[in-house]
Amino acid sequence: MPLDFRSAIRSEARQAPESGIVGVFNYGRHREGLIPLWVGEGDLPTPDFICAAADRSLKVGETFYTYQRGIPDLRAALARYHARHYGIADDPERFFVVGSGMQAIQIAVAMVAGHGDEVIVPTPAWPNSAAAVEVHGAKAVDVVMTLGNDGWTLDLDRLEAAVTPRTRALFVNSPSNPTGWTASLADLTAILALARRHGLWIVSDEVYGRFVYDGAVRAPSFHDVAAPEDRILYVNTFSKNWAMTGWRIGWIEADPSLGQVIENLVQYSTSGVPTFVQRAAVVALDEGEDFVARQIARADLGRRTVVDGLGGTGRVRFARPTGAFYLYLAVDGEPDDQALAYRLVDEVAVGLAPGRAFGAGGEGYLRLCFARSPDAIAEATERLMRWLRKGG
Amino acid sequence: MPLDFRSAIRSEARQAPESGIVGVFNYGRHREGLIPLWVGEGDLPTPDFICAAADRSLKVGETFYTYQRGIPDLRAALARYHARHYGIADDPERFFVVGSGMQAIQIAVAMVAGHGDEVIVPTPAWPNSAAAVEVHGAKAVDVVMTLGNDGWTLDLDRLEAAVTPRTRALFVNSPSNPTGWTASLADLTAILALARRHGLWIVSDEVYGRFVYDGAVRAPSFHDVAAPEDRILYVNTFSKNWAMTGWRIGWIEADPSLGQVIENLVQYSTSGVPTFVQRAAVVALDEGEDFVARQIARADLGRRTVVDGLGGTGRVRFARPTGAFYLYLAVDGEPDDQALAYRLVDEVAVGLAPGRAFGAGGEGYLRLCFARSPDAIAEATERLMRWLRKGG
Repeated sequence: MPLDFRSAIRSEARQAPESGIVGVFNYGRHREGLIPLWVGEGDLPTPDFICAAADRSLKVGETFYTYQRGIPDLRAALARYHARHYGIADDPERFFVVGSGMQAIQIAVAMVAGHGDEVIVPTPAWPNSAAAVEVHGAKAVDVVMTLGNDGWTLDLDRLEAAVTPRTRALFVNSPSNPTGWTASLADLTAILALARRHGLWIVSDEVYGRFVYDGAVRAPSFHDVAAPEDRILYVNTFSKNWAMTGWRIGWIEADPSLGQVIENLVQYSTSGVPTFVQRAAVVALDEGEDFVARQIARADLGRRTVVDGLGGTGRVRFARPTGAFYLYLAVDGEPDDQALAYRLVDEVAVGLAPGRAFGAGGEGYLRLCFARSPDAIAEATERLMRWLRKGG
Repeated sequence: MPLDFRSAIRSEARQAPESGIVGVFNYGRHREGLIPLWVGEGDLPTPDFICAAADRSLKVGETFYTYQRGIPDLRAALARYHARHYGIADDPERFFVVGSGMQAIQIAVAMVAGHGDEVIVPTPAWPNSAAAVEVHGAKAVDVVMTLGNDGWTLDLDRLEAAVTPRTRALFVNSPSNPTGWTASLADLTAILALARRHGLWIVSDEVYGRFVYDGAVRAPSFHDVAAPEDRILYVNTFSKNWAMTGWRIGWIEADPSLGQVIENLVQYSTSGVPTFVQRAAVVALDEGEDFVARQIARADLGRRTVVDGLGGTGRVRFARPTGAFYLYLAVDGEPDDQALAYRLVDEVAVGLAPGRAFGAGGEGYLRLCFARSPDAIAEATERLMRWLRKGG
């Protein structure tokens, strides 16, 4: 008889959902010639000049405990970066280094919501945000976005209708993983007004804020519309801009008065980020702009290839993404996204993520990451086009 | 008017206590000539052969997302290590890599206790364990250990009296930080019997299990007394044995049937540990025994120096530590440990941690870390002896 350990653990832990991408990923990961477009990362390793900073740090023995809020050099570099790109005051006290964008979300959630509370999460969305809410014993409340002639839209009336006395926060991810929806300044202003009316926190995930196209320099940000007294926690990561997915380092930006709380939550979860990883992050911020520009240009090329290629078949439906690096598409006559993802592994050796993994409103879609080499994207697009044209 | 963000956040987050060591640490950290014995880490940087493995990994581009449970090579190395040192079956499926011993505790707590639950924590204890319980909305219930003629003891009747219908787990840290208490096999057998009687989980923190003295090879472990069906979550770290405090890597050992739950909790907190950090950990386990032995011998030398030196003054009270690398001492006529810690910074330039930082029963004690160079320990001991002899 197998021992029943699972039933002896806490239900919130037991019920944390398995990632909805893992199934098809494990099914196809070792298939020869497969082009993997299912995971949210590019195919470039971290540039050497960033890795070298970590190695230098190790060589001088920076292997001890360090500041729970992040080393002063990195907090200063984050402040400079935000001053440059967002026009805010250069204030290192607003920045807190954490062990990934995911941990930024986890800590932000721990700050605002627990047992009995609700957090509103527009979907389709990266599923880890809602899962972090639920692991903390709070409830993630979906507000389904819709794809229409103007692309994906967040219905503000529907958003407001989801607010209850238990609501503590709105989770906003723009540009969006997986849909590419990029909130306009008007959207952000309206969301902020709603949060103010109801006394809610906003957790703003602007991880893809630099990945914008068609001449935009960066996505609109709550930095553009917020006042100092607004309750906003920004969560971000080094993963995407600087090809550092495997480094596990991100940041929270918040009012400095929350510093001790954030420090304590870092202390009692992972107790900080390695100094040598932080040294690499400083170099990324200070010297990484050429690399970021190159990554965005590469993603844009991928975006054009998949949009033009797949759009031309007349068999897929999607909004041309204005931000992030995903195409979120539905195939005519193929309502079962999960079955379709498995079939595409078998029939064309292209790995896509099933849309239902991204929550309510995601059924019937597939997510394709186009932040990869032009050759890989062109070949994957060709394979999908042939498959679509012959009727699937 | 300062903006009141703090009052708008969740009370469990707001109330997470500031580390009780930080105050005196910040007071004295820049004092010239100060010998810092307050933090729980040695003074040796990570050995080069371990750092080199991380650098090699970075150089071959291992900078991408990786397995949430840890890379297979590291899980296999952990299984071999435990088979060697604890005589258990070599089973990689029991091991899960996490981003520090602290995160191991956080995830273990998330598995067993949440809102409304209680976890029993014998004190004095490393305060982060109880804090992790409280951050999750559960209650940490102290059971105060006492220092008598036989050293520190955990009163099992008192332990059992603390069990209520809300109790979900016992947290056991042996060898203990800060007291050096090392549970005997009889202690562990009795604690396990208690847990079985009440259907409780044991979270076993055996981080200092290798740091034992007077001819012992390792501390008694729940591995020595547990049956397969016992509900035990082991939490551990690379920090102490291999001088890797700054690396943020640890592990959980648990029944393999809990693998998916642990994977999900990793996924929704930090999403894994960098591959290059894990490569270094593999080398530490497989090639680090000479270094571990050297560290233990060095700590033993420090232990003898402080025990003989301070004990000889006749003004301090402590149990000769049989495990871990701390002396937890009370000074006659000095009941205010916090004031005393500040005075010792000023008057003898030795940094000790105030005992009250370690919870109930810790008042009046100071924690001294003796895992440092023989010269530094000898000098600190001399300074303290002079101070004690002249009457403080």
